[in-house]
Amino acid sequence: MKRTIDVTELALRDAHQSLLATRMALEDMVPACADIDRAGYWSVECWGGATFDACIRFLNEDPWERLRTFRRLLPNSRLQMLLRGQNLLGYRHYQDMVVDRFVDKAAENGMDVFRVFDALNDIRNLQRAITAVRRTGKHAQGTICYTVSPLHTVEGFVNMAERLVELGCDSICLKDMAALLKPQPAYDIVRGIKERCGAGVRVHVHTHATTGVTLVSLMKAIEAGADCVDTAISSLSLGPGHNPTESLVEMLEGTGFEARLDKDCLRRVRDHFASVRPRYAEFMSNIHGVDTDIFDSQIPGGMISNMESQLKQQNAAHRLKEVLIEVPRVREDAGFPPLVTPSSQIVGTQAVFNVMMGRYKAMSGEFADLMLGYYGQAPGARDPEVVALAERQGGKQPIDCRPADLLQPEWQSLRESTLALPGSDGSDEDVLTHAMFPQVAPKFFASRAEGPKNLGKTAPPAAPGSAPGPSANAAAAAPLHATVSYDVTLNGRSHRVSVTPVG
Amino acid sequence: MKRTIDVTELALRDAHQSLLATRMALEDMVPACADIDRAGYWSVECWGGATFDACIRFLNEDPWERLRTFRRLLPNSRLQMLLRGQNLLGYRHYQDMVVDRFVDKAAENGMDVFRVFDALNDIRNLQRAITAVRRTGKHAQGTICYTVSPLHTVEGFVNMAERLVELGCDSICLKDMAALLKPQPAYDIVRGIKERCGAGVRVHVHTHATTGVTLVSLMKAIEAGADCVDTAISSLSLGPGHNPTESLVEMLEGTGFEARLDKDCLRRVRDHFASVRPRYAEFMSNIHGVDTDIFDSQIPGGMISNMESQLKQQNAAHRLKEVLIEVPRVREDAGFPPLVTPSSQIVGTQAVFNVMMGRYKAMSGEFADLMLGYYGQAPGARDPEVVALAERQGGKQPIDCRPADLLQPEWQSLRESTLALPGSDGSDEDVLTHAMFPQVAPKFFASRAEGPKNLGKTAPPAAPGSAPGPSANAAAAAPLHATVSYDVTLNGRSHRVSVTPVG
Repeated sequence: MKRTIDVTELALRDAHQSLLATRMALEDMVPACADIDRAGYWSVECWGGATFDACIRFLNEDPWERLRTFRRLLPNSRLQMLLRGQNLLGYRHYQDMVVDRFVDKAAENGMDVFRVFDALNDIRNLQRAITAVRRTGKHAQGTICYTVSPLHTVEGFVNMAERLVELGCDSICLKDMAALLKPQPAYDIVRGIKERCGAGVRVHVHTHATTGVTLVSLMKAIEAGADCVDTAISSLSLGPGHNPTESLVEMLEGTGFEARLDKDCLRRVRDHFASVRPRYAEFMSNIHGVDTDIFDSQIPGGMISNMESQLKQQNAAHRLKEVLIEVPRVREDAGFPPLVTPSSQIVGTQAVFNVMMGRYKAMSGEFADLMLGYYGQAPGARDPEVVALAERQGGKQPIDCRPADLLQPEWQSLRESTLALPGSDGSDEDVLTHAMFPQVAPKFFASRAEGPKNLGKTAPPAAPGSAPGPSANAAAAAPLHATVSYDVTLNGRSHRVSVTPVG
Repeated sequence: MKRTIDVTELALRDAHQSLLATRMALEDMVPACADIDRAGYWSVECWGGATFDACIRFLNEDPWERLRTFRRLLPNSRLQMLLRGQNLLGYRHYQDMVVDRFVDKAAENGMDVFRVFDALNDIRNLQRAITAVRRTGKHAQGTICYTVSPLHTVEGFVNMAERLVELGCDSICLKDMAALLKPQPAYDIVRGIKERCGAGVRVHVHTHATTGVTLVSLMKAIEAGADCVDTAISSLSLGPGHNPTESLVEMLEGTGFEARLDKDCLRRVRDHFASVRPRYAEFMSNIHGVDTDIFDSQIPGGMISNMESQLKQQNAAHRLKEVLIEVPRVREDAGFPPLVTPSSQIVGTQAVFNVMMGRYKAMSGEFADLMLGYYGQAPGARDPEVVALAERQGGKQPIDCRPADLLQPEWQSLRESTLALPGSDGSDEDVLTHAMFPQVAPKFFASRAEGPKNLGKTAPPAAPGSAPGPSANAAAAAPLHATVSYDVTLNGRSHRVSVTPVG
C-alpha cells in the first residue's frame, strides 16, 4: 500500500508572485481552473497579501471578487490563503475585532484553508487569527517560518509545532520562504513533529526552489511523514519560485508514496500557463538557475536587490559588500528574526544605514519598533545597547506584551472612513480592503467601475524571456511585410527559415 | 564518520555541450582551470565526441592541443573523457588497432579516466577500448546507458555491471543521458550493483537535469552507496544540462555524506562561467525549466526538435503527433535500443519516413544497418519482418558478430590519406582526427595555422537574464547579423529560439 502524498498547487498565488511580480490577471487564470479543479490537489493556494495588494494597486481588480470567482470555478477544491497573522494582509497589527471580521468575510466568500504565519514566529501574533478560523469551521493551519541561525534548532521548531497544535490548529506548515531548508533538517523537523505531536497531526511543507536542493528536501520530508507538499505547475516553477508539480509526481514513482494527480489535467494546466507567462515578460524575475550563496549569507536574493537599489540611490553601490557583512550583525542585534517580509526589509535598510552613517547613528522607525518589541518577540535576546538607542531614537518604551493588546477598537472608525470614500460600496469587504491598504484603496475604489486591467496584454506579443543584447534598439528600421531569411538555432542545430510579417 | 562523495565536474565538456551547443572556446575555460584544479573534484570531464567535433568544425582549434592545455592547467586533477566504445569519437566502428592507437594517444596527451559506452549497451563494442585503457594503466570506466523500456530492468542493468566488472573495469558508470532516472530505480540499481559486485566496486552516476527529479535520484544513489556523482557548476547547469555542483554540496549537509569541495573555488568558477555564458547566447539551448513529458514519450527533447525540422522540410509539420506515436513502435521493432546518439537519430528519422511514406516503405541506410546488427546487438529481439525488409532494402545480410570483427586493418591507409592532406602535421593525432571526422578534418588541417576562433566574442554583449521588454515587434527590423532570442510557444511548449539574419 502506497501512502498518498497530498499536493497544494501554488500557480494561482505564490508562483506568479515569485516569478511574475504578482501581476497575473484573473482572466489569465480562469481558463486553467477547470483542470486545476479536476487534477486532484489537496488544496489550491490562490490568495494572500501580495496578490491582494497587486489586485488593487496594479490590476484595478477587486480581490474579493477574485476570491468569489475562484470559489465558483473551483467547486471541488479547497481554496487556500496565506495570512500574516495579526497583520492580516497588511503591514501593521490590527485590533482583534478586525482580525475576526477579516476571517469571517474570507470564509464567507469561499476560503477553506487559512495558512497563518508571523514573521517573528511569535505565536501570540497567530493566536487570534487561528481562533477566528476555528470558529468559522474552516481549516486553521499554523505555520513555522523556517530560518537558519545559531538559535534555530530542530528542537525549537518542534516546540513551536507543539504549541500550534495546542492552539487547536488543524495542521502544521513548515514554511521555507527562502529555500534554506536542506534535506536533513527537513527530515528531522517533520519527524520530530510527528513524534512529538502524534502521527495524526498533518504536516505540510512549503519550499522555494531558489537554491536547487529543496525537491530533495521534499522527498526527505515525505519519508519522514509529511502529509502534503507545495509545488507549482512546471511552466510557473523554479528559479525563485517552487519545485514543479510534475517533477514531484514523477519523483515518487516506484517509491512507497504517490501523488495521485491526473497527469492529463496537469499537462493542460502547464500548457495554459506556458502560453500566458511570456506575456508578463517585463515583470519576470531576473533570477535564473540556482543561487546557493543564500546558504552562507542567509540573505534572500530579493533582499539583496532591495539593498542594492537603496545603495545606488545614494551613489554607494560599491559598498554592497560591507552591507552584506553588516546584515548578519544587525540580525543578531535584533535577536535573529527570520528574514521575511517585513523583517527582511527592516533589517536590510538598517544595515544600509549602519554602513553609510556609522552603526546605529541613524535608525529607521521600523527598526526601532522591531528592537522595542512592537512587531512581537524575536527568537533571541535583543542587544540591550541597541534597545537603549532605539528607545531614545524612537521616543518609545520597549514592550513585552502582544503588540495588538495595545490597540483600541478600530472597526467603527475604519468603517466610517471607508464609507466616506468615493466608490466604496459600504460592504465589510471594502472596509477591510481600506483598512489593510489605506494608501491604495481610495484610488482603487474610485476607479473600480472601469474594470480590471490585464497588464499581460499590453506586453509585447513575442520575444519574451530575456532576449539578450541589442535587439531592441536595433529593431528600429526594417520595412513591414518584407520577408527575411534567418538562421535559426534550435537545440544547437542551425536551420534556415524564412519569415514574413503577418498583416 | 561521514562518507565522502566524490564529484566529477562537467563544466568543461557535457555542460557546455548540453547548454551552449558545445561552442565554448578553450580560452573561455582557461581562467577557471586553477580554481577547478584546487576545488577537490574526483575528476574533471573535459573531452568527448562533440567537443572534439566542435573544435575542428567550428572553432578551428586542435582538440589534442586542448587536451594538452588542460593537462598543463589541471596538474592535480584526473582528466576524464567520454568515449563511444568502438566508435571512438566518430560515427562508425573502427578497426581494433585504431581503437588501441586512439587510447594510447589520449593517455599520452594526458587523459586519466576513460568513460566508455555503447549506444546499444552491447558490451562487445566496449571490450577493446576497455582493454586498451587498462593496458595504458589509466582508469577504465565501463558505462551502462540507462533507459526505460519493457525490457530494461534493475536486474538487467545489474547484470551488465557485473559483466563490465568481469571485463576489468576500474569503475562502473550509470549514465542517464535523457534525465529518465528516477530516485527509486537509481537507488535499486546502485544498490544492486554494490550487492552483486561488491562494495569495493566504484559506482559513478551521471544524470541530466531536464526532468527536474534527478538531484533526488543522486541523493538516493548516494544513499545506496554511489561513490561519485556528476554535476556542473551552477552557472552552467540545469535545463538540458546537469544538476548544480553547489546544490549537491549543500544538499548533503547534515547527512551522513559530504562532498569535500572548496566553496570559495566553486564560487570563483561559477562567477567565471556566469560572465562567459551570455556571450554564447546564440547557441543556448531553448529548454528552460523542466520537461517531464519525456517520461511518457521516452523521446528526448532534442530528438523531437530534430523530427520537427525534418517534417517542416517536407511541409508536414502538422504530422508531428503521428510521428511521436510512431517512434515507440519503431523502437520496439528495433529491439528497444536506448535513444541516444546515434540510435535516437536513426529511430527518429525512420519514424518520420514511416509516417510520410507508409511503414517501412522506405528505409534509411542507417536504420537498415541497425536492424541487421551492424551497430551491434539491441537489448531485445528485432522484428523479423522488418529485418527481412532491411535485408532487401539494404542489400546486406544480418550479422551476429561484433561489428568491428568484419573490419580490415585500416591504420596504414588512414595514415596515408592523412599525410596527403595539406596542413596535416603527420602525427598520429592528426591521423586519428582525420579518421574520426573525414569530412571536417581536411578543412581544419588547411586552416589550423590561423588559430582558434572564439564564437562567443562575436555574440552580442549580453544583458543576461535581464527583463526582455518590448523588443519583440521590433525584432523584425534588426540590423544584419544581430542575433535575437525569442521564446516561441509551439504546441503549448515554450522554446527559446535564437535567430540570426542571413546576409
